[in-house]
Amino acid sequence: MTKITLISSNKIFEGYQKTYSHTSKELSCEMKFSIYLPVAANETKMPVLYWLSGLTCNELNFVQKAGAQKYAAKHGIILVCPDTSPRGIEIAGQDDSWDFGSGAGFYVDAIVDPWSRHYKMFSYITHELIDVINNNFPTIHDRQSIFGHSMGGHGAFICALKNPGLYRSVSAFAPISNPINCPWGVKAFTGYLGENKDEWKSWDSTELVAAYNGPSLELFIDQGKEDNFYTDKQLLPENLVEACRSAQFPVILNMREGYDHSYFFIATFIGEHIDYHARFLK
Amino acid sequence: MTKITLISSNKIFEGYQKTYSHTSKELSCEMKFSIYLPVAANETKMPVLYWLSGLTCNELNFVQKAGAQKYAAKHGIILVCPDTSPRGIEIAGQDDSWDFGSGAGFYVDAIVDPWSRHYKMFSYITHELIDVINNNFPTIHDRQSIFGHSMGGHGAFICALKNPGLYRSVSAFAPISNPINCPWGVKAFTGYLGENKDEWKSWDSTELVAAYNGPSLELFIDQGKEDNFYTDKQLLPENLVEACRSAQFPVILNMREGYDHSYFFIATFIGEHIDYHARFLK
Repeated sequence: MTKITLISSNKIFEGYQKTYSHTSKELSCEMKFSIYLPVAANETKMPVLYWLSGLTCNELNFVQKAGAQKYAAKHGIILVCPDTSPRGIEIAGQDDSWDFGSGAGFYVDAIVDPWSRHYKMFSYITHELIDVINNNFPTIHDRQSIFGHSMGGHGAFICALKNPGLYRSVSAFAPISNPINCPWGVKAFTGYLGENKDEWKSWDSTELVAAYNGPSLELFIDQGKEDNFYTDKQLLPENLVEACRSAQFPVILNMREGYDHSYFFIATFIGEHIDYHARFLK
Repeated sequence: MTKITLISSNKIFEGYQKTYSHTSKELSCEMKFSIYLPVAANETKMPVLYWLSGLTCNELNFVQKAGAQKYAAKHGIILVCPDTSPRGIEIAGQDDSWDFGSGAGFYVDAIVDPWSRHYKMFSYITHELIDVINNNFPTIHDRQSIFGHSMGGHGAFICALKNPGLYRSVSAFAPISNPINCPWGVKAFTGYLGENKDEWKSWDSTELVAAYNGPSLELFIDQGKEDNFYTDKQLLPENLVEACRSAQFPVILNMREGYDHSYFFIATFIGEHIDYHARFLK
């Protein structure tokens, strides 16, 4: 069993919000994650909902700003939020920009040296972290879903699309929906995956939906209309929706008048998202 | 009309969370405050609920971590959160400690030089800020309440007790209930008010309840039992409750098993507090 070390524990909505560290084999470094355990988890096993955060975040932003614990407590769902990149390592250039390297792992498995030594966030999220959680907490092992924000919204989509059946449902707030066609994605994929654009396509949800072959899945998206990254064409949700329509892949895109890219937007609709996942998890 | 300058605006729960700056005459400096305007404030005047934050906070902690907007939207109440001390000034020693000076105004009017030149948070909160809010936003002028956390919980109590009738209701999370008898309070009151302990008593809620003479008022307190500042005797809510009992002053003290001093505690019970104030404000 993986050894995990408790960093903090705070009671909220009768359950406990905790933070742990552990040594990741996939990432070859010490990583932190946060977990919300509803009070009923003392007595019964529960499904798990994973949250993947956006650029610059760590394991705490979601915990402090989204207001998700209230809804997880209501439904009896464990919430897990990992960090957004390997930490505590030394790679030249890792801290030069906020949209690449530290805090910006993009949930892919890097194949370009030196990033490939540590930046395996996809494998970390979809294999190692699930094992760590299932081995240490009272989870129902085959009942898990995943959602996220921006970079993490796209991360949730590729984790689900590339692992048919692993997650029961998936949703996203303002996902970077078509990274191979936006500046953030091109920068990250060039750095982590190299110049071969065929390789990029295997990490882009808009490219992946057509080839998906697995249990029924739906992409559930909330997008603020006043999100400056949406208007700057970093997010491109319409490309993903168009690809879904072409592939007859189920998709819901809620365009939200007046909302932006912030956690204020997330806090407003987090209850609806957790209600959505609860329908698949219970 | 006081000129106020918009710094930020984010849509949340259909309304807008905004931050403004303005020049304070009481404090002789530029100050910031945050305000949540439910969507219905576009069409109708609303009551106001003021939140006073604790040590080290500014106008944003409450906005980002408490999850209060959902309940303010539900009840149609404007939420205002000021900063916790004068800012952008130069007083020797103001940044030497986290429990005195910057971020630690204690909501009193300092009488000791050099603090008395700026540290007039009591007058700022109970007079100037109310005028700024009423002159710039669609408020019902005689319907306001006040609450807060820790230093700000006590701030809410003294603002209400020293201004009978100004606020319709008052509540606090983990207030520093008897500052003249705890290390934080003794340090702050010595610095801002000098050595005369009779002066201190006029700024201590536990001393003030007996002399209160005004419209019916109740002190509503939530306190976590695992709050380390409670067990360290910085908060002393029992002293305040005892003083209320002696004076036949209405008081409610909810001791909350397992909860600590953090915003996780506040987020859990913020809905109950706003429901409480709504009963007096509507």
